[in-house]
This record gives sequence, structure tokens and C-alpha cells, in this order.
Amino acid sequence: MTYCVGLLVNAGLVFMSDTRTNAGVDNISTVTKMKSWSLPDDRFLCLLSAGNLATTQAAVSLLEERGLHPSERRPSLFTQPSMFQTAKLVGDTLKEVIAYTSPSGQSADSRFAGTFILGGQIRGGKPRLFMIYPEGNFIEASADNPFFQIGEHKYGRPIIVRTYDPEMSLEEASKLLLVSFDSTIKSNLSVGMPLDLQVYEADSLQAGYAQRFDERDPYYQSISDGWSDALKQAFERLPPFVPNRHQG
Amino acid sequence: MTYCVGLLVNAGLVFMSDTRTNAGVDNISTVTKMKSWSLPDDRFLCLLSAGNLATTQAAVSLLEERGLHPSERRPSLFTQPSMFQTAKLVGDTLKEVIAYTSPSGQSADSRFAGTFILGGQIRGGKPRLFMIYPEGNFIEASADNPFFQIGEHKYGRPIIVRTYDPEMSLEEASKLLLVSFDSTIKSNLSVGMPLDLQVYEADSLQAGYAQRFDERDPYYQSISDGWSDALKQAFERLPPFVPNRHQG
Repeated sequence: MTYCVGLLVNAGLVFMSDTRTNAGVDNISTVTKMKSWSLPDDRFLCLLSAGNLATTQAAVSLLEERGLHPSERRPSLFTQPSMFQTAKLVGDTLKEVIAYTSPSGQSADSRFAGTFILGGQIRGGKPRLFMIYPEGNFIEASADNPFFQIGEHKYGRPIIVRTYDPEMSLEEASKLLLVSFDSTIKSNLSVGMPLDLQVYEADSLQAGYAQRFDERDPYYQSISDGWSDALKQAFERLPPFVPNRHQG
Repeated sequence: MTYCVGLLVNAGLVFMSDTRTNAGVDNISTVTKMKSWSLPDDRFLCLLSAGNLATTQAAVSLLEERGLHPSERRPSLFTQPSMFQTAKLVGDTLKEVIAYTSPSGQSADSRFAGTFILGGQIRGGKPRLFMIYPEGNFIEASADNPFFQIGEHKYGRPIIVRTYDPEMSLEEASKLLLVSFDSTIKSNLSVGMPLDLQVYEADSLQAGYAQRFDERDPYYQSISDGWSDALKQAFERLPPFVPNRHQG
């Protein structure tokens, strides 16, 4: 599996992904699931992927038009007039790749399926965030639904649901995602370190800071250890349970 | 789906289950998934069930030998010499029910499958806790693995993993399970209130207190509201994230 999150706050966008890929528990490897493109002063795009690695890598390669000579490459990602059209391009490419691999056509539960989270901003528009399905269609984040998770999303969901605030700074949002990933990694072998972080500041139209966290990263360690202690203390501060003994 | 947890602490056993059952989102109902039997001074047993409701109810009925005239009922649950033999009886019964319903024999992914958590104590033995699979086999809880979850288990797992302590009192363990259930209910429609709690005090050989929590239960409300606040405060107390700007 995989775990990736894209989060929309007023200050911009925050993306995080794990790097574990596996075909069975005895065949694991590290691969980045995050790809970003920047055309300063014009647009910034970030793509997170889950699912069949051959499918998602092929889709990214097609999007980058790697088949062309480097001097002729002009990614069609950079020529779309809007984030909506960019999401459509990504969805169409994903759908084509899956259809090519699956002899009998593609479906959501195809073993060649993949899912993307796409976020970014194009000059003249707002920062936008999309979840793109194997069928090529997609949904957009909004105030009611300000984040998307793909892959092994259940363990790390409660903390985001309970702590998310649109007024968070990009650093607070990064911290929140680290806690969500740490909770997932503690419970599920198929999500693994290191973690990739990419931040985008609204209206900057260029990549924000990016960082990779491995197990030895001192800040990650302080979050992981600190969260266990903080949870225990929070739990202890909740009112004690006094049973209704007469019901016993 | 369903969410049930059985938890082993030094002080005894704590069981909790939700009560939502559904066949599609437009056909939901409330049903208890917890059943307990007590033969004071001899044994106490509690069974939690997930999966096909017809299967798990049939298995429980067979275990209770409801087919006999009431005056002749002597549940075979009460004649087993050990918790291990009791778990074997439950597993055999479950396997038989599934095999009867599934024309081509049963398998783990059969739509007639069910899973049980069985806990209890028989005079002369210790409190023990088992997870029983549709194939009729089972595993036992231990110090390394002191709790079992069945059904929609992922959302509520991180808080148990991080907060569990074998020295917890039965009341603290009950509080922990309420937090775990509340996190699950906040994220997943297929797990629903009210919640059933059953506590067993080690070596008491009789049922401990039992309680049903609905949405209006003031203690449940204080946990649900308090946990959101406590999580936010815990999150704020974690060290702030300062990006390595040079990597940006």
C-alpha cells in the first residue's frame, strides 16, 4: 500500500507521501510517490500517486512527455489554461495507461489501477486540490472537504478530522501530517519511511520548501515520541469513567 | 461493518461493541453484537461478533442450544473444561454454520463469514481472550498482543496502541475503548451508536458491570467533546515544525 495526503489551507497547500512500495511482504523497496513541477510566476503543480507503480510511473512519464528529445520537451502540463483542465489531462492520461494494460478494459478494482492527488495553482486562479480516480474522473477539495487521502488512509484520518483548521499555518499543517503519518506507520507495515513533504504557499507560483524525513530525523523523532506522551496525557485528562453499577 | 474490541488487562477483561447492522446504506438497523453468559462461581464468558448476522446469530443460538425445550437446555458452553475447549467449541460451531450456508464450502472471504472475539474465565484457569476465525481456528491474546479488534478496526487502533497499559484499571480501559469507538464513529458511517460495554473483573467468576451508551449519554458526550479539545491541545504542545529552508 501507500499513504499520501494533500491538504488545503488558507495559506496554501501541503503534500506528504510515504515511499514504501511492495509486491508481497518479501519484496519491498523505496520509491518516491510525489512529483512536482514549477514554472515560476506561472504555475506550480504537485502530484501524489497510489496504486500500481507501473501504471502511475507510466502516467507521469507520459505527462512529462519523456519520449521526446529533451530539447523538444514541452510538458503539456505547462500549457493547460486552468487547474481543472490540468486535472482532466492527468485523469485522461491515467485512464489511457490503465486501459492499455488491462486487456478487457479498465475498472476501479483492476490490479493495474492507480489514483492521484493533484494540487497546485495557475496564475489567475486559486490554489486547487483534486483527487483523480482510475476511471479518469475527479473530485475537488472544498471547505467542507479540505483534504484528500489515498492508500492506507484509515489509521491517520481521525487526527486530521479532529485537528484540521483552515487557518493553520503551512508549518502547523506539515506538523499535522507528520502526526497522521506516524500514527499510520505505527499500525501498518505497508506504509514506510522516509516521508516526502512538499509545501506550496498560496499565490507564490513557485515551489515552497520540500523536505525528506527519515527515521533518524530529529524533528520526526520528537513528533513520534512526543505524540505518544501527549496522547497519554490527553487521555488522562479526560474525565474518569464511573460505571452505573446498578446496571451491572 | 461493525467494530468490536476485547481487551486484556491485569485487572480483567473489557469488551465493547457497536450496534449498527446494515445491508446497504439504505437498510440499517440496531442489533447487539455482544452476548455474555455467567455461571456464578464457575465461569464467565463474553462473545463479540462481526460479519454476516445470520451466521453469527445461528452460531450463538446453536451454542445456547435453543432448539431444546427450555427445561432441557444445558448450554455446552457451560460444560467445557477450559477456555481453550470453549474457544474450540465456538470455532467448530461457527465453521459448521458457514459450511451449511455456503453451497461450495466455506472460505475466509465467503459472504456468509463471521468472526468472533471470545473472552472469559473458568474456575481454576486465568482470564483468557481469543479471536476466532471463520475457518474455526483461533488465536489467543498475550502480553505482546493484549487486544483484539474485529470489523472496522483501523481508525480506532492508533489510540489503543499508544495508550494501552496492562496496569490500567477496568474503568480506564473502558474509557480507552470509548475514545477508540468515538474516533471510529467520527470517520465511518458503518459503525454506529449505541455502544455496549461489558466488564469482567479477574477471578470474580461472574459478570462485571455492563452499560449501554447512546448519543445522549452525558459521559459519552464528555469523552467525545473532550477528546477533540484534548487532541488539539496535545497537538499544539508538540514542538513546532521549522522547515530546512535550504532544501526548498
